[in-house]
Amino acid sequence: MSSKFQLAENRYGKTRVRLVKVTRHAHGPNQISDMFEWNVRVLLRGDFETAHTEGDNSKILATDTMKNTVYYIAGRSKATSMEDYAKELVDFLLSRNPQVSSAEVHIESVLWKRLTVDGKPHPDSFMRGSNELQTATVERAQDGEFSITSGLENLVIMKTANSAFEGYIKESLTTLKETKDRLFATSLSASWSYIADDLNFEAERTKLRAAMLKTFAGHISLSVQQTLYAMAESALEAVPSVSEIELTMPNKHCLLIDLERFGQENPNEIFVPTDEPSGFIQATVKRTA
Amino acid sequence: MSSKFQLAENRYGKTRVRLVKVTRHAHGPNQISDMFEWNVRVLLRGDFETAHTEGDNSKILATDTMKNTVYYIAGRSKATSMEDYAKELVDFLLSRNPQVSSAEVHIESVLWKRLTVDGKPHPDSFMRGSNELQTATVERAQDGEFSITSGLENLVIMKTANSAFEGYIKESLTTLKETKDRLFATSLSASWSYIADDLNFEAERTKLRAAMLKTFAGHISLSVQQTLYAMAESALEAVPSVSEIELTMPNKHCLLIDLERFGQENPNEIFVPTDEPSGFIQATVKRTA
Amino acid sequence: MSSKFQLAENRYGKTRVRLVKVTRHAHGPNQISDMFEWNVRVLLRGDFETAHTEGDNSKILATDTMKNTVYYIAGRSKATSMEDYAKELVDFLLSRNPQVSSAEVHIESVLWKRLTVDGKPHPDSFMRGSNELQTATVERAQDGEFSITSGLENLVIMKTANSAFEGYIKESLTTLKETKDRLFATSLSASWSYIADDLNFEAERTKLRAAMLKTFAGHISLSVQQTLYAMAESALEAVPSVSEIELTMPNKHCLLIDLERFGQENPNEIFVPTDEPSGFIQATVKRTA
Amino acid sequence: MSSKFQLAENRYGKTRVRLVKVTRHAHGPNQISDMFEWNVRVLLRGDFETAHTEGDNSKILATDTMKNTVYYIAGRSKATSMEDYAKELVDFLLSRNPQVSSAEVHIESVLWKRLTVDGKPHPDSFMRGSNELQTATVERAQDGEFSITSGLENLVIMKTANSAFEGYIKESLTTLKETKDRLFATSLSASWSYIADDLNFEAERTKLRAAMLKTFAGHISLSVQQTLYAMAESALEAVPSVSEIELTMPNKHCLLIDLERFGQENPNEIFVPTDEPSGFIQATVKRTA
Repeated sequence: MSSKFQLAENRYGKTRVRLVKVTRHAHGPNQISDMFEWNVRVLLRGDFETAHTEGDNSKILATDTMKNTVYYIAGRSKATSMEDYAKELVDFLLSRNPQVSSAEVHIESVLWKRLTVDGKPHPDSFMRGSNELQTATVERAQDGEFSITSGLENLVIMKTANSAFEGYIKESLTTLKETKDRLFATSLSASWSYIADDLNFEAERTKLRAAMLKTFAGHISLSVQQTLYAMAESALEAVPSVSEIELTMPNKHCLLIDLERFGQENPNEIFVPTDEPSGFIQATVKRTA
Repeated sequence: MSSKFQLAENRYGKTRVRLVKVTRHAHGPNQISDMFEWNVRVLLRGDFETAHTEGDNSKILATDTMKNTVYYIAGRSKATSMEDYAKELVDFLLSRNPQVSSAEVHIESVLWKRLTVDGKPHPDSFMRGSNELQTATVERAQDGEFSITSGLENLVIMKTANSAFEGYIKESLTTLKETKDRLFATSLSASWSYIADDLNFEAERTKLRAAMLKTFAGHISLSVQQTLYAMAESALEAVPSVSEIELTMPNKHCLLIDLERFGQENPNEIFVPTDEPSGFIQATVKRTA
Repeated sequence: MSSKFQLAENRYGKTRVRLVKVTRHAHGPNQISDMFEWNVRVLLRGDFETAHTEGDNSKILATDTMKNTVYYIAGRSKATSMEDYAKELVDFLLSRNPQVSSAEVHIESVLWKRLTVDGKPHPDSFMRGSNELQTATVERAQDGEFSITSGLENLVIMKTANSAFEGYIKESLTTLKETKDRLFATSLSASWSYIADDLNFEAERTKLRAAMLKTFAGHISLSVQQTLYAMAESALEAVPSVSEIELTMPNKHCLLIDLERFGQENPNEIFVPTDEPSGFIQATVKRTA
Repeated sequence: MSSKFQLAENRYGKTRVRLVKVTRHAHGPNQISDMFEWNVRVLLRGDFETAHTEGDNSKILATDTMKNTVYYIAGRSKATSMEDYAKELVDFLLSRNPQVSSAEVHIESVLWKRLTVDGKPHPDSFMRGSNELQTATVERAQDGEFSITSGLENLVIMKTANSAFEGYIKESLTTLKETKDRLFATSLSASWSYIADDLNFEAERTKLRAAMLKTFAGHISLSVQQTLYAMAESALEAVPSVSEIELTMPNKHCLLIDLERFGQENPNEIFVPTDEPSGFIQATVKRTA
């Protein structure tokens, strides 16, 4: 067509490259396996204008080749964290593709737990855990520094005590009743940025997650906002290498059922959990400069 | 229209009645909560022909009323198992509705686990577990006996060793390679029938599930069929009050990735897990008469 | 283990074998494509006891080979209906596998529609339709006759007029208000059995589906039960080769919102559609013997 | 805790507020209904720091009240587009809540189509269409201008001809074969920004969508990138009031099945559609300044 229009931004890559890696250790006379399951996404930015405007594929790394690269690097990598593997994958892609200006790798790790049999961990059998995902996003421009953001998603948690919601605005469309004692359920998503790229990412993740859960459990909550903020603070306290953290905490409402209509008390016991509509609370907390 | 056609079978009810029940115990100076989340379905059969043919609703218990009944019985019940609660609900519905010939209650229980904080179980905070569902189906006709079937679904498990598949039919459309060592992943569903209706259903369930998992983990598997059968046998061994058990074990294939194309070995380490197509293996095993 | 237990029933096969078939027709100087997308399941029953009890795979047709067979038969078949293709696939499997006592093929066909460009059907571009699935299940035992059941699922429909629900049982747990005018939304599933195996299945399906939809739209509904029965009758009227039909019509409730609290009328206009809980209505209607 | 940390960004609101609106027109002696189904999200930013740090809810509009507001405005609005309704809702929220600095309303509209019976449109019966969503996002700060972005999602389309992919980089990890003739399937998402806020949004949407589909169908595609760019250009050509458009076109791969292994040709006819892994192509095209 024309020069009336221009390519403003573009990126492309491969998504949902799934990968199970089993590591087999000698263990006395026996073997023991470790395993993980990852879902990898690779995205590239760069000099792809003529691909769009002229159908010139000469600078295009096929997304199928990216998929092969994910597996190839997984096979040779000794990385023990998503973040370290992603750094290797970004480096490999950038070094072989000068037409790429920056590469981003995003990984979701699915929960698998070792089976316990007769009270003992089994050497080579596993069970899927919850839908909680551990995530990592590593990005780097040619000649640039790594930007590393880790996270988690779908961590569904509930407090059955110590949650109130009072003192909010009352206006003509307000029908919600104030409560000193409600169920507080949410599906926590979090992402946090590191100030360095050579950390023990698994150890940091473990500390940060435990700090947030401890605060969630112990908090005397006056609102989702207040508990979210306290959880973010405790994360930043627990892991000094994190510069800022974003939390998203949808309010998965559990509604108290009116049984008095039927002549029966309901002393905060029987609730209907609802998926929609859902409150949505999101905030980013960072260190003061 | 006409007498050319007739109502052959019919049933109706309410599905997806969700319910969270929190039980609050005194605990020294403090309180401790237990909670569960159920998804209840009620189905009725009976004398509903004129409802279909004439729009006569005089024998119809509204499904909205069934929903209220689920909550009402949950509020007053002391049952500690799905099966016992379902029995109460079936009895209540049958006693008040002589036009109903039989009532069935099916319950799915969602996994929630108590949060651990600083190594200790927290009194009132919980975390969603895996997508594994515990199920119970209780049915009774007016003046009949309870039929009780319990089960579980979506128990996703994997063996990384001791699984082979060899010796199957080779024909002109066969391309699968034999293997002495593959990943074996499945999403187990099971349902089992009890020979009595006054059991400690939670205890029986726990024993049966542990027996199946122990067999899965320890089995030297020559096929999914063989492992399935061994798991069913161990379930029947573990719980004499179960008369028969049906297991469904889709084969969630994990395919070994060919890295030799890239000059790299893949000693049974890097796999791609696939959702489709999927093997499907199902069998019922019962006690010999 | 033992002869204390026995294999009661078993079947196995391959599920979720997905398939797109494009047929390219010459069309004057140009080409025109037809296409469909199917999801195929193959299940076999037969002499598989030693596979379960001894790990003997010598009678096992690998499920991977079934997948290859699905594609191989699709490549050579001239069938224009799911039912006719399924018959070919069943015949092929039974003829080559004497150890198989019966074979069942189930197919779901996904909706794709030809794109319209400038008011004309485009020769080779298509768009996904709704989530409605057309289904077919064909089963045959060695030396037996075909059993053919066709169906549809997920046909989501709504009436905004001519739907009432009154005169139902009022009891102590009833809170639902009677209504002469409600929204009636459902996700229709239907399956019907043919009395012959050599029909024009596509033509029969089209007639049956149109008859049901016409009745749904035109019915003065006193209940879901009554409308369901009328739809079943019209299906049996429209297609004499169908012997019986089962309909499932969950009541996807749309609740009228109370705006009078806010000083505003709501003359049956603003509703909240809900996914759960859901009414469930199911009946089979057959020809009178 | 402390002043070591600060609230950087925050927003909150209500998501998944579902709404069916039925409009009943007199129509000669009869009535005819129109209806739509929307899924509404409201998000507010503003002076909510003490809510986070002190649990002070005095400036918090409860998300339940937002839900009521969605229904209240829907009841009184005469708007015929999502965009115009969203503007009313934003105005209402901002005018009553000075503590809110900006409000954003996002709406997804679900496809419903009028039923055709005996070749004629039915006055009050409807059928769900595909999963394609029409979307609108309207945002405004106190005393600011509206920012209006419209879009669509999940528009799944396929070309069975005129799609090639050749000339891409060949390197040591490349295994993809070049093709002059492949299936090209994608799930189109698009969002576009308007330069004004008082347009006939429904008319603009219809023109833009038709232009993209026409280009998709007619394009001689050398790559997804090239087709995406051509579709974006045609959208900008068709609707001068759009300043820029972002398209996302995952490559939903359909893989040609190798039937030659079985002595059978596969002349570009039998494919396996795959959900994962998936190519991902995204670009923004704008008018040249």
